[in-house]
This record gives sequence, C-alpha cells and structure tokens, in this order.
Amino acid sequence: MLTLYYAPGTCALAAHLALAHSGADYTLVRLDFSRDEQRSPAYLQVNPKGRVPALATDRGVLTETPALLHYIAQSFPQARLAPLDDAFAMAQVHEFNSYLCATVHVAHAHGRRGYRWVDADDAHSLAAMKKKLPQAVGDAFALIEEQLLRGPWVLGEQLTVCDYYLFTISKWLEGDAVDVSRLPRVLEHRARMLAEPLVQRVLEAERGPAT
Amino acid sequence: MLTLYYAPGTCALAAHLALAHSGADYTLVRLDFSRDEQRSPAYLQVNPKGRVPALATDRGVLTETPALLHYIAQSFPQARLAPLDDAFAMAQVHEFNSYLCATVHVAHAHGRRGYRWVDADDAHSLAAMKKKLPQAVGDAFALIEEQLLRGPWVLGEQLTVCDYYLFTISKWLEGDAVDVSRLPRVLEHRARMLAEPLVQRVLEAERGPAT
Repeated sequence: MLTLYYAPGTCALAAHLALAHSGADYTLVRLDFSRDEQRSPAYLQVNPKGRVPALATDRGVLTETPALLHYIAQSFPQARLAPLDDAFAMAQVHEFNSYLCATVHVAHAHGRRGYRWVDADDAHSLAAMKKKLPQAVGDAFALIEEQLLRGPWVLGEQLTVCDYYLFTISKWLEGDAVDVSRLPRVLEHRARMLAEPLVQRVLEAERGPAT
Repeated sequence: MLTLYYAPGTCALAAHLALAHSGADYTLVRLDFSRDEQRSPAYLQVNPKGRVPALATDRGVLTETPALLHYIAQSFPQARLAPLDDAFAMAQVHEFNSYLCATVHVAHAHGRRGYRWVDADDAHSLAAMKKKLPQAVGDAFALIEEQLLRGPWVLGEQLTVCDYYLFTISKWLEGDAVDVSRLPRVLEHRARMLAEPLVQRVLEAERGPAT
C-alpha cells in the first residue's frame, strides 16, 4: 500500500495523477498549508524537508517529484508511464522533469517563497522577486513551448509521467501573471489533459474535504 | 562516441566523473565562461539553455545533470553506478539528485546568478541574496549531513552517481562562505572522494588548456 501526502494546488498533483494512471493501490493524506501542517512535528517525521509530495511505501518514504514519478513508472511497468528499457529515452524523461523541478518550479517559488533566498523581512527583495515572476516563469515556459514539448505529448507519441508533471506546473501560469498568449502549445496540452476523465477524477479527489 | 560539454568548476564535473567511472568512450569540449561561450550561437545550437553540462550522443543531446547521470548509469550497467533493477532504490538515487539540483545548486546560484530572479540592475536584491548565501546553502547541506548521507557512500555500501554529484557540489562550500564545521560527514566524504585516483585524473583533465 502506498500513501501520498499532498496539498491541493501543489506539485504533489503530478505524482497523484501518475498513481491514478498506474493502477496502484494508494491512499491520500491531505495537509493543510494554511495551518502550516507541512511543518508539524508529526509530518517532519514523515518528511524532514517539510514539503509535499511525500510517498510512503513499505520500504520507506520517498520525496521529490522526479523521484516519485520514476518510482511509480518503474514499479508499474504495465502502465507504460516511461520508456524504462531505453537509457536515452529515460534520460529524456529525467531531463524534462529536472527542468521542471529545478528551473520552472524554482522560478515560480520566487513569487511566494522568496524568503528561502533572502531575509524574510527584506520587503524590497521579496517584492523584486514577485515583480520578475511573469518574465522568469514565462521565459522558462517559452523553452518548453518552442523546444521541449514535441506533441502531441511531451516526448512525442506516448504519454509519460512528463505530461502529468507539465500539466501540474502549467496550472500556475495565470497565477504567476505570465503572458500565456506566447504559449499556445502549452495551453493546448493543458486543455487536452484537463479533458481526460482520469485528470478530472483526481482533481475532484484533491478538492475533497480536508481530513 | 559521447561528447561532454563542460566548464571547469561547474556541476558538469559530476557527469565527467561518472563518464570516467563508466568506461565509456568520450571526448571533452571545454567552454570558456569568461568569454560567455555558453551563450554563443554555436553552443546554443547544442544546448538552447546556454548552460553546461550537455552530452552529445549518437541519438541527440542530453542536458540536466540528473538526466546525464541516469543515462550514463543505465547505458553502462557493468559500472554499477546505480541500482538499475530496483525501483525503490532508483527512486532514492533520483530523490538525492533532485535535491542537489533543485535545492542545493539553486541556493548556490543565488550568489552569482541572482539576475535570474530579480532585475539585473537591482543591486539591493542581488546583495541580499549574496548575504543569505551561507545560511541558505548551509541549511541545505545540513539535511545532507544529518539525514541523507548514509555512509560510507551517499546511499550506503555502494558508490553511485550520487557520490560524484555530491562531491561536485560540496566543492563550492567554502566559496559560498558556509560554516563547514557543521558538516563533518560531508567533509569526510569529500576528502575520501578527492583521494580517489579517478577523481584526481578527471580534475587534472578539467584543468587542462582551453581548446
């Protein structure tokens, strides 16, 4: 049995979607970020990083979205969520996921979590990061638009974990005030993902009442 | 034949070390960052991100250190650089590498590349990021010291690509003015890696004359 620790609106959605796709048996534990539950002593026992997602397995807890996506894809090969036997294609999966986590998600995080990189009471610097957000996130997405998203899916003809991750992060574009008119292919991908019954079902589950 | 594009002192060292360990046939192309060669038209044809590392293979170019490390480990299984057949252990490899690229390396990048997240002429914010550097990088390394580095190697008894990546990033600690006295296990790991003949050989190759 797998347990996914998540909060609505976070990047934990990517692993949630991959789990739903995989056919895995899993349960959800929802954290309330408004009550700072991700930094509660109980949750820090699960994940000392104080973030989501975390995936509890019978061998221990895993964190970091690219790692969870790898675990789900390799544990449930019949779901064909990644080209497991092809070293080059698997590296492309990780290339895309690393770009999302280390460049795109990081750019986004400067909007509300700038205190990670400057003093929390430095209002000028925090505002400066927020001001740059549309450009920093927009430029990061422009590379996806123009180079990385091959179509119809991220890596071409086969849907992979990369599509669930891209969908998750692309939901933040308007909140970051990015000019989405420069990203028609990303928006088309997002709309197509959103129309999937599996995606609808997972979003509905995330909207459910906090436990 | 593989070609690694690198610059001395960058995270490209991790892939270089893994390549040397793997027994792969490879050549090196050194970029001169002082002349901004990573943003030259010729290099942007290789890697539109304008960064290192990039690894040219006979199927195309790969970027992002976690992806290169995965590719090298899976392409040369006899080198035993990762627990390829174990989904959970492979996820732990990617968990560690994601933490290095998206948290530790990102914290470090705020020292000299803060213009990615605030306006390049905002001297106050750039200085604020630099000021926070010892704490932000130090706190990120404290988690490695206390939780992630199992010993003797990152993942326990077997050296993996994670060790080459940790070694690479830990070379930046003093330059970021981190209080390394709080990181005795990281320093011991770094010293042990540095004593390896393979590591010495690769560092020597990186110090060679620019082409």
